[in-house]
Amino acid sequence: MAKQEFVKEVADINTDFAGWYTDVVIKTDMVDYGPVKGTMVIKPYGYAIWELLKSYVDKRFKQVGVQNAYFPMFIPESYLKREAEHVEGFAPEVAVVTYAGGQELNEKLVIRPTSETIICEMYAKWIKSYRDLPVRMNQWCNAVRWEKTTRPFLRTSEFLWQEGHTVYASQEEADQDVERMLNIYIDLAEKILAIPVLSGRKSDREKFAGAVATYGIEAIMPDGKCLQAGTSHNLGQNFAKASNIRFLNKDGILEYGYSTSWGISTRLIGALVMVHGDERGLKLPPNVAPIQVVIIPVATHKEEVIIKSKEVEEKLSNLGIRVKLDDSKNTPGWKFNEYEMKGVPIRIEIGPRDIENGVVTIVRRDSLEKSQIEFDNIEKTIPELLNDIQNNMYKLAKQNLDNAIVECDDFDTLVKEVENKKVVLAYHCGDSKCEEEIKNKTTIKTRVIHSYDENHKCVYCGKQSKYRIYFGKQY
Amino acid sequence: MAKQEFVKEVADINTDFAGWYTDVVIKTDMVDYGPVKGTMVIKPYGYAIWELLKSYVDKRFKQVGVQNAYFPMFIPESYLKREAEHVEGFAPEVAVVTYAGGQELNEKLVIRPTSETIICEMYAKWIKSYRDLPVRMNQWCNAVRWEKTTRPFLRTSEFLWQEGHTVYASQEEADQDVERMLNIYIDLAEKILAIPVLSGRKSDREKFAGAVATYGIEAIMPDGKCLQAGTSHNLGQNFAKASNIRFLNKDGILEYGYSTSWGISTRLIGALVMVHGDERGLKLPPNVAPIQVVIIPVATHKEEVIIKSKEVEEKLSNLGIRVKLDDSKNTPGWKFNEYEMKGVPIRIEIGPRDIENGVVTIVRRDSLEKSQIEFDNIEKTIPELLNDIQNNMYKLAKQNLDNAIVECDDFDTLVKEVENKKVVLAYHCGDSKCEEEIKNKTTIKTRVIHSYDENHKCVYCGKQSKYRIYFGKQY
Repeated sequence: MAKQEFVKEVADINTDFAGWYTDVVIKTDMVDYGPVKGTMVIKPYGYAIWELLKSYVDKRFKQVGVQNAYFPMFIPESYLKREAEHVEGFAPEVAVVTYAGGQELNEKLVIRPTSETIICEMYAKWIKSYRDLPVRMNQWCNAVRWEKTTRPFLRTSEFLWQEGHTVYASQEEADQDVERMLNIYIDLAEKILAIPVLSGRKSDREKFAGAVATYGIEAIMPDGKCLQAGTSHNLGQNFAKASNIRFLNKDGILEYGYSTSWGISTRLIGALVMVHGDERGLKLPPNVAPIQVVIIPVATHKEEVIIKSKEVEEKLSNLGIRVKLDDSKNTPGWKFNEYEMKGVPIRIEIGPRDIENGVVTIVRRDSLEKSQIEFDNIEKTIPELLNDIQNNMYKLAKQNLDNAIVECDDFDTLVKEVENKKVVLAYHCGDSKCEEEIKNKTTIKTRVIHSYDENHKCVYCGKQSKYRIYFGKQY
Repeated sequence: MAKQEFVKEVADINTDFAGWYTDVVIKTDMVDYGPVKGTMVIKPYGYAIWELLKSYVDKRFKQVGVQNAYFPMFIPESYLKREAEHVEGFAPEVAVVTYAGGQELNEKLVIRPTSETIICEMYAKWIKSYRDLPVRMNQWCNAVRWEKTTRPFLRTSEFLWQEGHTVYASQEEADQDVERMLNIYIDLAEKILAIPVLSGRKSDREKFAGAVATYGIEAIMPDGKCLQAGTSHNLGQNFAKASNIRFLNKDGILEYGYSTSWGISTRLIGALVMVHGDERGLKLPPNVAPIQVVIIPVATHKEEVIIKSKEVEEKLSNLGIRVKLDDSKNTPGWKFNEYEMKGVPIRIEIGPRDIENGVVTIVRRDSLEKSQIEFDNIEKTIPELLNDIQNNMYKLAKQNLDNAIVECDDFDTLVKEVENKKVVLAYHCGDSKCEEEIKNKTTIKTRVIHSYDENHKCVYCGKQSKYRIYFGKQY
């Protein structure tokens, strides 16, 4: 096959994983660098993935009664200062508008790094009584955090995300919300993106600035690093107090509301690339593949081949499958490489001999297995195959996750294991200072709590344990 | 009915149209003012309308081969200066980020007022040969234009919109694109929003800053003012030259690309409110009504009424109709007023007597006609009725549009007619200076060209006419 003419190459996934990642996202036309440092252009192939995952969660949100809305991206600088931890958390990374409409502004405007402060301000205005509760809104928007080191999708100055914000009349309902939304994120990761995750509460040190508790989902990359892929925050009454969100409860007493917030962002696309990719490039699970099936006619000059290819395209398209027929002038070999690199789950090859035999040739991207199916079985077999690929990709990723986790009780071993691309499950005292020391010494951080347990010793300081928690390096 | 207890009131639509508009959009929970002057919060009831119209055009875009993408909102200040007319057009209204991440920036960043400059920069990088063309991308995003006078939806510092940007290998294809996208906007306005529009080319004075020609759709409001509801720009080679978008054509010669851009924004929601509303508030065409049918049980304490109401809700919901059952404790009278104000196309009342008679009572929002339909006919009748309301609302709006247009050949009469809430069709010389004088004297502007005609005299300066064009005041 004409492999020599396929000029796009990706760095070696085993020896240069970071280079491999960049090559893949750039060369498959998912993303490009924007002109301003740290910004990205999400190209159609990357954006289509975002649209697919967005449509899944958006539907789930609506099913549980969340409503979409849109809040301004300009936040008066003073708002950010209302909640003490919050301002500390975000002040160093905000972008600020100082003049507009040809004039210096009286009050500087921060571009939302997250919208708790401005949304709570509006909620304070709207909410009067328990009858107004719960309020549950979500917005799909851009947000800005000025980061020193950036990488497409994983960490960019401007990113796309959804942020949901709620207020409830009781802590109990807020607790339920935090769990409900976390579960939606787990489903998104596991059922749609085929990414198994670790989920649970984060340590106090790692929680969101201003939250009472943060829950998160963590995906593990092939290089052993963890990637926070979604968070659900229990804000308690912190933001309600800072923004004065009060409601008359059923007993006629003014009470502060109980709020939550939760979000996922375009960095999920980065996780998707890393978890599934291989030396040939992307490998996309069918549920978020912009092209689920590519049809490549072999011998495009033969009319019968093109006719048959179009027939197959129509059949699959009628089933709602995202199919592309590539009858361009590139060689079949070039196309094979191109769509393998783009991670298209199924390739169908149709040549004169296939037509004679009443079959088409199928190549699965996940296993690279080649087989033939009868033309008349296409409508039955292809959907089954897509389903099988989705499950198979999850299964493989789950094995990798399981293999990446080791338990250990000794700090030196913990450090070695992490260096060895592992995520370590160990006991910890729960003290932020102890965690801080670990981080400063090793760049290793805690990820999510596995289980509460006071019967062991902290892996680092030796004091009584509070919980068992995952340790790892992070993206 | 308990009208007295319904405390939300709107200003008189005949004597205070501006006050009526603000009351309606605020009191129906479509929108609220943001904390920063000129910004708005789009609340769920308003945002749901945006989502519905967005889903219609997005589908149309995809059908004609446009792909969604996302470009950074930060534009280096220097980019805006590349195209001379463009910088003049937008410089006075941009918002500028001067520091970020705790540091003063080396180059100031403009927040996109529109993205021609940054998208063309990327296109210049991506496009090499005619084989790369056409490129047709669209993005749904926020944009910022710092306006002195703002009104929710109609003119806000930050707004939501879609902006499509294309590059073609020939002027002819670009011309076709401009027309194709304009036609999608006409369909959106007429078929979905039930808003009849005037459409056509704008005068040179009124075109987009940097375009060769701008085409637009104009809706006429009850106060006789025109509202530009969508634009499609032919950019010729202007931006390609400014950004150096060149491709090797089929003859192997480097040539500048031919580009277009086109957009609609959240101001369409403002048009929707004004065109259809009446003294009771909003009146929404079924195709974009977040709630198409509201069910109001009369005598909510009776179990049979609630059971029947839920049955109807389920029947309609199964048909894909957006239905809401309001079994809250407010009085029926309060609910009637509430959903009339919210413009819900159909109200179904269900009371004990209705149940006895095997019927439900129906009230159409467009005509306020009351009727009864048999319970067993609901699934047949309601969809027909929604369809009829949609058509009827368009018909009425079309009559209003037709009645608003007068022809005249004399400038004094033109001014009087415009003062009298009319849009005037008159001959004009096409000279921007002549147009400028008219505007400075009267605030009247040209809207879109009706037809080319050189056989008459300009209504203002008396020189030879170039075309017949609509004149009016604008939002």
